[in-house]
Amino acid sequence: MSKKIPKVRIIPLGGLGEIGKNINAIEYENEIIILDCGLTFPEDEMLGIDVVIPDITYLLKNKDKIKGVLLTHGHEDHIGALPYFLKKISVPVYGTKLTLGLVESKMKEHNIGNENLNVVSPSQKLKLGSFEIEFIKTTHSIPDSVAIAIHTPAGTIVHTGDFKIDFTPIKGEIMDLHKLAEIGKNGVLALMADSTNVERPGYTMSESMVRSTFHDIFMNAKQRILVATFASNVDRIQQVIDAAVEFGRKVAVSGRSMVNVVSIARDLGYLDVPEGTLIEINDIDNYSDDKVVIITTGSQGEPMSALARIASSDHRKISLMPGDLVVISASPIPGNEKTISKVINQLFKRGAEVIYEALADVHVSGHACQEELKLMHSLLKPKFFIPVHGEYRHLKQHVELAQSMGMNRENILLMENGDVAEFSKDRAKIVGTVPTGHVMVDGLGVGDVGNIVLRDRKHLSEDGLIVVVVTISRENGSIVAGPDIVSRGFVYVRESEDLMGEARNVVKRALMECESKNIKDWATLKSSVRDSLRNFLYEKIKRNPMILPIIMEV
Amino acid sequence: MSKKIPKVRIIPLGGLGEIGKNINAIEYENEIIILDCGLTFPEDEMLGIDVVIPDITYLLKNKDKIKGVLLTHGHEDHIGALPYFLKKISVPVYGTKLTLGLVESKMKEHNIGNENLNVVSPSQKLKLGSFEIEFIKTTHSIPDSVAIAIHTPAGTIVHTGDFKIDFTPIKGEIMDLHKLAEIGKNGVLALMADSTNVERPGYTMSESMVRSTFHDIFMNAKQRILVATFASNVDRIQQVIDAAVEFGRKVAVSGRSMVNVVSIARDLGYLDVPEGTLIEINDIDNYSDDKVVIITTGSQGEPMSALARIASSDHRKISLMPGDLVVISASPIPGNEKTISKVINQLFKRGAEVIYEALADVHVSGHACQEELKLMHSLLKPKFFIPVHGEYRHLKQHVELAQSMGMNRENILLMENGDVAEFSKDRAKIVGTVPTGHVMVDGLGVGDVGNIVLRDRKHLSEDGLIVVVVTISRENGSIVAGPDIVSRGFVYVRESEDLMGEARNVVKRALMECESKNIKDWATLKSSVRDSLRNFLYEKIKRNPMILPIIMEV
Repeated sequence: MSKKIPKVRIIPLGGLGEIGKNINAIEYENEIIILDCGLTFPEDEMLGIDVVIPDITYLLKNKDKIKGVLLTHGHEDHIGALPYFLKKISVPVYGTKLTLGLVESKMKEHNIGNENLNVVSPSQKLKLGSFEIEFIKTTHSIPDSVAIAIHTPAGTIVHTGDFKIDFTPIKGEIMDLHKLAEIGKNGVLALMADSTNVERPGYTMSESMVRSTFHDIFMNAKQRILVATFASNVDRIQQVIDAAVEFGRKVAVSGRSMVNVVSIARDLGYLDVPEGTLIEINDIDNYSDDKVVIITTGSQGEPMSALARIASSDHRKISLMPGDLVVISASPIPGNEKTISKVINQLFKRGAEVIYEALADVHVSGHACQEELKLMHSLLKPKFFIPVHGEYRHLKQHVELAQSMGMNRENILLMENGDVAEFSKDRAKIVGTVPTGHVMVDGLGVGDVGNIVLRDRKHLSEDGLIVVVVTISRENGSIVAGPDIVSRGFVYVRESEDLMGEARNVVKRALMECESKNIKDWATLKSSVRDSLRNFLYEKIKRNPMILPIIMEV
Repeated sequence: MSKKIPKVRIIPLGGLGEIGKNINAIEYENEIIILDCGLTFPEDEMLGIDVVIPDITYLLKNKDKIKGVLLTHGHEDHIGALPYFLKKISVPVYGTKLTLGLVESKMKEHNIGNENLNVVSPSQKLKLGSFEIEFIKTTHSIPDSVAIAIHTPAGTIVHTGDFKIDFTPIKGEIMDLHKLAEIGKNGVLALMADSTNVERPGYTMSESMVRSTFHDIFMNAKQRILVATFASNVDRIQQVIDAAVEFGRKVAVSGRSMVNVVSIARDLGYLDVPEGTLIEINDIDNYSDDKVVIITTGSQGEPMSALARIASSDHRKISLMPGDLVVISASPIPGNEKTISKVINQLFKRGAEVIYEALADVHVSGHACQEELKLMHSLLKPKFFIPVHGEYRHLKQHVELAQSMGMNRENILLMENGDVAEFSKDRAKIVGTVPTGHVMVDGLGVGDVGNIVLRDRKHLSEDGLIVVVVTISRENGSIVAGPDIVSRGFVYVRESEDLMGEARNVVKRALMECESKNIKDWATLKSSVRDSLRNFLYEKIKRNPMILPIIMEV
């Protein structure tokens, strides 16, 4: 009997064909480890949905095999679904200090304890069942990000996490290129690499580039400065604080998530804030305008964010004054262009100066461009490659990038969420699929809003609603009360009294016709009301509201 | 008695603080002329709205003074509201041949005759009352665009229309810089200039730049080529046709607006299509794949467009084959990034090659960048300047651009829609405002959807609806039938039977409490039902559906 060739499986359950809800299962025999557990924000058509988490049906079925969850960094799309996950599957979680600091604050909101959380350092090795795990320091738009190497009996799998190669990072060391080189030298079976910026040629600029822009801005500012950025971009926040210290400004922090992250990052030593620099937002008016900086959320123009409220004079504690300078130190996440633009327009209208990406170098990306990706591929020299963290277009182009470096197309797996890829020393193939998808969270409801509910919400949002209520006699089916018509989101009724009056007559006629034909079953009555009213309204006004006939019997 | 100093007024009624629905009134004593009459597309929060047109209350009140409408070019945001306007105010309309060709097709859809339309040539002068009008050839992303000079007794007003300065246009001559220079030399009282691209340094590239990209694409393509672009971009379409002719491909046209524009532009001589080049979309399969190009709508990823339907295998006549090449020759209009990306992903998934702006030079803008704007200012040397055609941020930065060229801030009017600016030889000021705003068109309803309807649509879209119906006795207020609860867009009922059952009990208890207190007025009954149900649901599931209590009496 020949010796069995060891095989390892990679199952992406989220993060492929999308930017968001990253989660992967790595499976060897009867053991599974999970890489990241993120959420994503709802698509436009997911009306009323708060967040979207991965479908973990497959993991629930294989609960007992799961050895733990490894986290690459503390962004929502990598950690955000963890509370929902841990409520159902209680296993150890491993991540670096800042990452777990952010996870812990999230767990508190969900009333979950922190007993599963285990801090690892990037130099540490970890053994979980048959897996030996190495964390490798990377650079990204949040500190303490790591790539992860998973040594299995079938070979080594490397997941880059989200990364850029920043040779002059704000704090700490550069990415651990030596360890990557060493791992590459020892042989990598499969590489899973970030594809976000694969469409961009060249190199992503260093976070340090922003430093000189901030320096100039602070040097010339005569009044208050407000800087909006991502709360998780701790290094950016550090640069604002550094500039503030240099120019003798106090720093106030605004926005719930910003306050939260600044506090966590400071407690854990990721943010250097000289004593006396931070002031309470309530105290900003105690300092002259040229001595204050406010760091705030809202760089994406989110309607409820601090910056949006400041822009619309709706913030309780900060009122903008003409001449104040607002720096939007971020670029729009696709889909947010219009909300950001709206905030910029409002800020300008209120007399503020506004500096944003189109006008100055106030932001750099956190993801690797083409040349950085090539460096990663070169160092790791994987046998097989799976592009991850990207929409299909990005994955596709990452395939082409790998091919351009001489990789054979058959060694590259362009996977989708739910695909099961099996790897042995010199073979890789998709061997099946597992259930996958998204679970929508609306309020406390997890997964109770499905396509029918969304379809109704869409219909209601576009055309509104007409409710027709009629009470009929149980004995002979004649109308006892009504029909009453109530509409919402359809037309402004006071201006459309004629239309609504006519509509009522249409319903009456339909019901009377049913009565004369001795039709009594409710389904027919309802569809008769619905059809006649729909035809009438479409002809009259070319609209198609949802029509809800309700019949009561007395 | 001193001689009266002649004064002219400029009243922008749309297009300032927004990109869309451009319309301006130029007023001298008892005479008004209108510059452009465009529509805009609904903002995200305008749920269910089809298009948005300007509020012309002011013009309706001053109907008899209006001498005519002048059009700068044939884009929707400059001509789209004309049918609605002409239905209420029947006056002559003046525009170049292609512009009026497009207007006429729009009028037909609205069943309006073409008796008001008067074709002018760019060299022509026109006298309307006290106004002497010159049309000046410009270049833009649609042929036959003009700037307009309006000579009034108070001085000359120049409106640039939308423009770029293209020294190597695809067809016809370059912008008439000589006439602009001459007008500038003779003195310009006020300039109104396009601000769309004011944030971009340098020059907009010539439309000709796309030619070489197309050439390479066509040379290397092995299968069918599909090019998606704006239907109105006739020069771009010409370039596709030219490349098709060069490489021996037949051209088919897909998408209603594309078919329409190609037909109009061809009839009027704006499109050179050699005999035998165009084929019917039904006939594409009669040619080998390397002999066909399809020009299509959908460059913005519009869900109902030809390209989106092709991408989702939902097009009746075109089915994509692996290896087909799709060129998206456009850039995203802000807000459309995600729909375009979705289409690109779908196309890639179906095995097509996709080329878009991030990957190749397949598009150039139609609007002037900073250096072109400076040339315009330099040639016209206006006394006063009003930035137009832009969001507030663009107008603001156009003010700064003018100042950077030495113009005094007090000679620049940063206006908003509805402001009335009065100009005499050496004075300009805002002297008042007139009613302005937007009118929403939904189906055949013009202006019957207002804020209350939109607010309801938004509420319904996010949280859905619960209708509670109960029939009570006229005599003693006791419940005769119900309460019945019907929900839509709230939860998937079959999975939430318990919740709905509990909700029903909550309503019952509320009604019984009212009965026991002998409360009979319907307003109190309804609010009691609404409040108790709302509290219950929020506590249970943290959602806040619209609750519609309906009481019937028998």
